[in-house]
Amino acid sequence: MNGNQSGSARRGTARPTPWGAKADRETVRRHNLSLVLRAVRDQVEATRAGVAARVGLTRAAVSSLVEQLLDSGFLSESGKTFSGQAGRPGTVLKVARTGVAGIGVEINVDYVSVCVVDLAGTDRVRLVEHLDNRGAAPAEVFGRAARITARALVSATEQELRPVGAQLALPGLVAAGTVLQAPNLGWTAVPAQAPFAEALAALRADEPPLPVRSDNEANLAALAELWFGGLGDIRSFLYLTGEIGVGGALVLDGELLRGANGFAGEIGHVSVSDDGPRCRCGSHGCLEQYAGQSALLRAAGLDEDSGAAGVAELERRAGAGDDGALTALSGAGRALGRALSGAVNLFDPDAVVLGGIYRPLLPWLAASVGAELEIRVVSGLWPAAGARLKASSPAADAARGAAALVVQGVLADPVAYAPGAPH
Amino acid sequence: MNGNQSGSARRGTARPTPWGAKADRETVRRHNLSLVLRAVRDQVEATRAGVAARVGLTRAAVSSLVEQLLDSGFLSESGKTFSGQAGRPGTVLKVARTGVAGIGVEINVDYVSVCVVDLAGTDRVRLVEHLDNRGAAPAEVFGRAARITARALVSATEQELRPVGAQLALPGLVAAGTVLQAPNLGWTAVPAQAPFAEALAALRADEPPLPVRSDNEANLAALAELWFGGLGDIRSFLYLTGEIGVGGALVLDGELLRGANGFAGEIGHVSVSDDGPRCRCGSHGCLEQYAGQSALLRAAGLDEDSGAAGVAELERRAGAGDDGALTALSGAGRALGRALSGAVNLFDPDAVVLGGIYRPLLPWLAASVGAELEIRVVSGLWPAAGARLKASSPAADAARGAAALVVQGVLADPVAYAPGAPH
Repeated sequence: MNGNQSGSARRGTARPTPWGAKADRETVRRHNLSLVLRAVRDQVEATRAGVAARVGLTRAAVSSLVEQLLDSGFLSESGKTFSGQAGRPGTVLKVARTGVAGIGVEINVDYVSVCVVDLAGTDRVRLVEHLDNRGAAPAEVFGRAARITARALVSATEQELRPVGAQLALPGLVAAGTVLQAPNLGWTAVPAQAPFAEALAALRADEPPLPVRSDNEANLAALAELWFGGLGDIRSFLYLTGEIGVGGALVLDGELLRGANGFAGEIGHVSVSDDGPRCRCGSHGCLEQYAGQSALLRAAGLDEDSGAAGVAELERRAGAGDDGALTALSGAGRALGRALSGAVNLFDPDAVVLGGIYRPLLPWLAASVGAELEIRVVSGLWPAAGARLKASSPAADAARGAAALVVQGVLADPVAYAPGAPH
Repeated sequence: MNGNQSGSARRGTARPTPWGAKADRETVRRHNLSLVLRAVRDQVEATRAGVAARVGLTRAAVSSLVEQLLDSGFLSESGKTFSGQAGRPGTVLKVARTGVAGIGVEINVDYVSVCVVDLAGTDRVRLVEHLDNRGAAPAEVFGRAARITARALVSATEQELRPVGAQLALPGLVAAGTVLQAPNLGWTAVPAQAPFAEALAALRADEPPLPVRSDNEANLAALAELWFGGLGDIRSFLYLTGEIGVGGALVLDGELLRGANGFAGEIGHVSVSDDGPRCRCGSHGCLEQYAGQSALLRAAGLDEDSGAAGVAELERRAGAGDDGALTALSGAGRALGRALSGAVNLFDPDAVVLGGIYRPLLPWLAASVGAELEIRVVSGLWPAAGARLKASSPAADAARGAAALVVQGVLADPVAYAPGAPH
């Protein structure tokens, strides 16, 4: 989902040549500012000396870069530390709790969730409204989302945070700011980024327009998982989210794999059986027909349209040892395991992370998913009892991932976002 | 296939910090030398002025870098050109036809193919021996391969080429220089890189040992396809090769996707059917059981062990309109199409390239593969009549890809390979 930017000119970074970025003095300094800013963010008690040792620049060079980052409000100083240095105290550096920030806006079937994160990635403002977006005209949905976003921006301002961009998280195939398909919203080829940006700009007539990008929600939830999910050393994983459909995303070496057109990760329509039930995609035997929310509820004898309440009831029944619930879950687990083992053979990730309805249901899915992975993954690295199959973290959701993606752009090139920069 | 190097110390490149390479003056110059060398390689009539315009450095800087590359033997000058400049002739620069080179060594079931390529990627020496490696002890196979390689190195020396590394292409799962599994050779956990390097060093006792790396053959064939396959603008594709097994590799944005452990691309055991025939991997319903060479020959009523002759006969029968052959091919095509559509939904490549036995058979596979892709790929970007399904190029094989991978290392950091450099 290629996240074109609207509402603002491109950032003023040097244009790379076809053979990589030209390395001149300004490029080197911008690169090193980013290096130092990220080093401070990732250290517990960062000092100039500690940062210099970590990034491999001289103490003098780091001091000069730190001054510029302090002047621009990206860093702040707080107290002294004696740690690590022989008796000589260093001033502790931190990324600023005020100033540049990112805002993420998840528009989903039955809620809108808006999140503002600061430079450290901390969730600083959260505004969630439960509402029904099914059947609403897209313009109405974007108007609602813009109003909620505008309110979150007021809260951000009160906290002296200055979001430099908004990132939409949308449930469907997204390309060039348009939702190509979001079957659960009933949308086909619905422009999203521009209408949202315009609705937001209209509500904030006195402010410069906020750059808006858009992406698929599973992609952004996977990034949140990478950044905030507590995955430790795991940098390559397959993320699968069970909703009415089954969404997916791939992270390799800490980078989201987007594919040539931004459509990578669509695991919901992997073929599980060559003669399975008809799917709304036009094909048959797709994973969604075995492990999507409706299929799973139906298999367990529950109302397939009962949503979150139905999933909670399924969880309750499985916990109580109900046969119908357990059989439905192990059948869905086998289908998931078959689709996942194909994906694991193709991608060779370190882990599979299951989110959405699969998070609470994982205790009853894990055995059958694991058995398929053990048999089918040719590398032999996926024994059923292994620890590579994980539930997603509650701290990692698409709105936070979206907001943090905006901040990641700042960390990659802070100069472009310094106060007064023409971004 | 993570390609550990043996036989030599690591190249003397600056060690990157966890936040990326430290950008100091030496790093910048090495980077720019690579930039200029690659620009010369990629231009038809490169001049200093043309290169400067293309890479975005000053004419003076490029002249200094070019001098160093001429002195080290990476570039040569040849004649004058008037193209592009207003009346002022420029000296034409070319990458050297002598000097540093790469050698690729494909060890397969019934042949060993060795290829030496120069800096331009041109195939300069090729030595193929058809022999039967089945049933031979690994030490014997590596001894044969080393003798063939040593002969090719003599030819390279006669052409004044100096291979700076050898890359093995092996038919199976490869990690850390070991073949974990190569069922068609009957190998499990067979060390490959070190025995080959030692056998080669023993044959060339007066020479410094050649650094050796190893990788899966499908990965290297996919790289050859990327570099020499005439794919035009296509930078992301799925490569599938039909052999006794079905091998695969993924290229995204011009980079081979290796996965967390080097095992990515294994498409042969994607599940095509939930109750299909037993596979030698221990599972059932795998793609190989429908579209591997033996399965395809058997389905067409031919001897499943008849190898290349059987495939040629299948092609002949299909060309003659034989019903059994056409039915077998369309069945295999449907299985391929189902597995491929899952992979396309996951990766979103620009194209699928079919090699091995699928190259000659593509005319009779294309319709059923295409029909599955059209129905199953959710982005809608794969109409059956589209041009995204391609046959591999005869100019792109694993040995050439292997040799060119060695050369790519030189292009990325020529300083490390200059005469006298301690690589």
